[in-house]
Amino acid sequence: MHAYRTHSCGALRASDAGQTARLSGWVHRKRDHGGLLFIDLRDHYGVTQCVIPAGSDVFAQADAIRPESVITVTGEVVAREGATVNDKLPTGAIELRVKALEVQSHAEVLPIQVAGEQEFPEELRLRYRFLDLRREKQHRNIMLRAGVIASIRRRMIEQGFTELQTPILTASSPEGARDFLVPSRNHPGTFYALPQAPQQFKQLAMVAGFDRYFQIAPCFRDEASRADRSPGEFYQLDFEMSFVTQEDVFAAIEPVMEGVFNEFGNGRKVTPAPFPRIAYDTAMLEYGSDKPDLRNPLKITDVTEAFRDSGFGLFSKVVASGGIVRAIPAPGAADRPRGFFDKLNEWARAEGAGGLGYIQFAAEGPKGPIAKNLEAERVEAIRSACDLQPGDAVFFAAGKKDETPKFAGKVRTRLGEELNLIEQGEFRFCWIVDFPMYELNEETGKVDFSHNPFSMPQGGLEALNTMDPLEIKAFQYDIVCNGIELSSGAIRNHRPDIMIRAFEIAGYTAQDVEERFGGMLNAFRYGAPPHGGSAPGIDRMVMLLADEPNIREVILFPLNQQGQDLMMGAPAAVEPARLKELSIKLDLPPAKGAAGPKAS
Amino acid sequence: MHAYRTHSCGALRASDAGQTARLSGWVHRKRDHGGLLFIDLRDHYGVTQCVIPAGSDVFAQADAIRPESVITVTGEVVAREGATVNDKLPTGAIELRVKALEVQSHAEVLPIQVAGEQEFPEELRLRYRFLDLRREKQHRNIMLRAGVIASIRRRMIEQGFTELQTPILTASSPEGARDFLVPSRNHPGTFYALPQAPQQFKQLAMVAGFDRYFQIAPCFRDEASRADRSPGEFYQLDFEMSFVTQEDVFAAIEPVMEGVFNEFGNGRKVTPAPFPRIAYDTAMLEYGSDKPDLRNPLKITDVTEAFRDSGFGLFSKVVASGGIVRAIPAPGAADRPRGFFDKLNEWARAEGAGGLGYIQFAAEGPKGPIAKNLEAERVEAIRSACDLQPGDAVFFAAGKKDETPKFAGKVRTRLGEELNLIEQGEFRFCWIVDFPMYELNEETGKVDFSHNPFSMPQGGLEALNTMDPLEIKAFQYDIVCNGIELSSGAIRNHRPDIMIRAFEIAGYTAQDVEERFGGMLNAFRYGAPPHGGSAPGIDRMVMLLADEPNIREVILFPLNQQGQDLMMGAPAAVEPARLKELSIKLDLPPAKGAAGPKAS
Repeated sequence: MHAYRTHSCGALRASDAGQTARLSGWVHRKRDHGGLLFIDLRDHYGVTQCVIPAGSDVFAQADAIRPESVITVTGEVVAREGATVNDKLPTGAIELRVKALEVQSHAEVLPIQVAGEQEFPEELRLRYRFLDLRREKQHRNIMLRAGVIASIRRRMIEQGFTELQTPILTASSPEGARDFLVPSRNHPGTFYALPQAPQQFKQLAMVAGFDRYFQIAPCFRDEASRADRSPGEFYQLDFEMSFVTQEDVFAAIEPVMEGVFNEFGNGRKVTPAPFPRIAYDTAMLEYGSDKPDLRNPLKITDVTEAFRDSGFGLFSKVVASGGIVRAIPAPGAADRPRGFFDKLNEWARAEGAGGLGYIQFAAEGPKGPIAKNLEAERVEAIRSACDLQPGDAVFFAAGKKDETPKFAGKVRTRLGEELNLIEQGEFRFCWIVDFPMYELNEETGKVDFSHNPFSMPQGGLEALNTMDPLEIKAFQYDIVCNGIELSSGAIRNHRPDIMIRAFEIAGYTAQDVEERFGGMLNAFRYGAPPHGGSAPGIDRMVMLLADEPNIREVILFPLNQQGQDLMMGAPAAVEPARLKELSIKLDLPPAKGAAGPKAS
Repeated sequence: MHAYRTHSCGALRASDAGQTARLSGWVHRKRDHGGLLFIDLRDHYGVTQCVIPAGSDVFAQADAIRPESVITVTGEVVAREGATVNDKLPTGAIELRVKALEVQSHAEVLPIQVAGEQEFPEELRLRYRFLDLRREKQHRNIMLRAGVIASIRRRMIEQGFTELQTPILTASSPEGARDFLVPSRNHPGTFYALPQAPQQFKQLAMVAGFDRYFQIAPCFRDEASRADRSPGEFYQLDFEMSFVTQEDVFAAIEPVMEGVFNEFGNGRKVTPAPFPRIAYDTAMLEYGSDKPDLRNPLKITDVTEAFRDSGFGLFSKVVASGGIVRAIPAPGAADRPRGFFDKLNEWARAEGAGGLGYIQFAAEGPKGPIAKNLEAERVEAIRSACDLQPGDAVFFAAGKKDETPKFAGKVRTRLGEELNLIEQGEFRFCWIVDFPMYELNEETGKVDFSHNPFSMPQGGLEALNTMDPLEIKAFQYDIVCNGIELSSGAIRNHRPDIMIRAFEIAGYTAQDVEERFGGMLNAFRYGAPPHGGSAPGIDRMVMLLADEPNIREVILFPLNQQGQDLMMGAPAAVEPARLKELSIKLDLPPAKGAAGPKAS
């Protein structure tokens, strides 16, 4: 017989009754029922009920075992009878009558419980993550993550992609965030950087002639932590393709996303490919966001003209001074009590807006302060533009051209929630396309890149040379699911001449570009294919699937929000001799108790 | 028609003749045959011959294109006739009559050629790695690596393993090599370390209740570069299993290794599982190495007793002073000319040995200096012990107990090569087992751990308490292929009491152990399963399969031997403000021109 187990704790069934079996696992729960001792024995695969009768040789030993100790038990598989069968447990038809018991590892008194639903503070959970992970939800989240990643890999390979490993000890990258640095021992005074993303390497892989690259790539950014972003490291499905248009990129990745979300969505509906493509300008108008949550059916309409020189003086003035008015429908809200409208107005003021105008299209006709003052044909024009029916209401966001669309988007979200319109149990995907290449920097009055300076401008060199920069669109796209941006991608600018001109418009000289991005630019001078790709965030995909708003819940051993590993004690002080070897020394800020984390 | 291609450059066949096709790729070769211009167009998938007739509109444009420019060509697929069919090329039955041509990217004059067999210095190749990788062998090696890794993943998942990502920004680990350090910005004066291996995390994953973990894990060691070890980062197939014996570990990984080597071995024979298990002591005796190359059929025999108090004074003295004599057979070498034996003796002296004794078992009887002096029955005893036939010879390594076995191993290797006995076209696997837990430190006279202090000693606590430490074996094992150690593994010591005792024997107090390995030890106090694993090196596996002695040939973007990325310019100096943020400053050694690498 095997030293530890003949079966896992999830394996035994009624048909095994009569057999002798050996199981190993953790003491999940222990119950003393009138001299009979029940132990729920747990491993990775399941739980099996083990029974030790009062007269047993091992009763005293079993009775003394603390929860979470690891034991090996050997005994007879016995079918449970009648009411004692547990239908909820795959092994619920049997129990193991223990004849022999060996303790593999004693557990001390636990700092956090494994069995049960009790909540514990995150810091304590992370310090004892090896215990925390034994809990059902945590274990399930990590297994979900592993399943998702394995499925992505399989699907990408089926789509003809090849996984390549790009360097982790590399040069500083121009991604915009802060790099982590690694001092070089052999080259004093110099540093490696950890990659913020394998962006340059994947493009170089295309230049090197690999056609369809992907990688479940570790990425590193020294940034403040957020709920949906881990401090330190995160993973993305980095991919890149040669000789492709934007539509080819979409066609390659859509079946992967659709497939993975269907596979792990637990019956939740998934947008079938092709996903809707929404132009950036349309998204900002209709959803007030470049990350629209399409589970919310509401669409925003521009009604600026309906208020120009109108009888509703407040909005009329807004429009006269160059502002805009956006209408957000509130289906079926016409008969809501006054308090409903007042509460939304309060919320709007708390959000920094002047307030929210509204019209109620009651059965007896339009109502409310705006309807009183606005000409009837204008009220009707708004109703018609917004496709409202009797019984509906509409809210208005009015103000400056740059702020109002986003505020209208917030109103849309809020109304969707208030009116219970957000469809649950769905994954709604879309692409946001046609991002502007440039934007006006309000502070400096200069033209900046709006997102990625390495995207190909639509219309190429000619567009750069002839169009108003603020009108130029880029072959750049985001994939969005339920209002979460999973990634940004682009058809890249693979032409040095176009790249230098694109940077020139944003105020960089050719020399600036050579100095900062010389590696890439140089590579493009020896035959570069047109190429493009994207990099959906793995952690965010798993968060969506696990319905977990906290990224640390889907990472095996996460750093805490302060970027510390409380279990292993990182970061930690190192001996001065180690620093000397690296040709660096500490340069601490004036002391205000800047102690490092303690090792656990 | 697609903007770039209707087919890849490897796709067109005779059956496509008559179609219009569009291809994109790199200008691999260009030949002007009496007015006809031939372009071999290359992409990731293959090469297609494109033809541009003299009168074509695009002739001048095509004629001016430099090799490695990227072009898109459109034209008619034409079947080649008779002698012009190229059987060596999958697309050799057709060519593309080009009607339209667009240059996607012009190539400048190339620093290294892509077509052809010319060799270039490694530094130049690495600086222009994006060109170097376009060459056939380089491209093939990287695709092989990708294939091997994908196959490993698939096989591990089939074996019930789950891939989990362990942290890369972590704490210093007790692996023995030097860590790379990463200064923490938010915790001044402290540092993360990059993992030398996910050893502690995989053990913690077992403690957390995951049963069969694996990871294609990036590992980082700040070590001097060797041919088979990359400076900086490398990958290993890291795996760990709970509730297993050593044999379970072997049974899980053997089919993966056998399968991968069969899949990518190109017909080379692979040891069928189960692989031979060879005890460390046996390996040191019979092969003179703990990494025996089993393609070499020679086995070493101890013949110390045959020389004790014998007529061959030299060896007799060696034995009398506590030394040993090992015999290495040389099948069929009895009739080799004197020069053969002299050359081997010269080599032995160059290796630091006194020389190599030998006996030739000629048809007419034993010959040579030793046979003259050694008693005939002893000569016969040696012949019999080594199972030698008339026509064979035998060499002797004699000397100190600790040095002689390894030297005998070198002789075995040398003889295998000299006599052409190394079987080619085979992958011969074996496990080396039963490593000693401790060894005597010759300098200090103290007992040290011989390999991994975290392995479970065979016999457990009782062995530690009752046996001579130097006699204790560990549940520790290496997997070896063709003389290359692919990895070291072990059944881990999961018991704090046994670990503290094991360290005590090696001179550490319980407090030392708590301070250095407190994280792990602490975890083991809350219910740890018996567990074990290993971590075969991915790069080494690919090197074996690709038959490449240089590790950089199987890495996409390797650092050079000095740990520099010549293409991206890493490591590099950073601005003082960045260092200030990290609370460090430079502490450069006295100048001797310690300039950093230049950015490319």
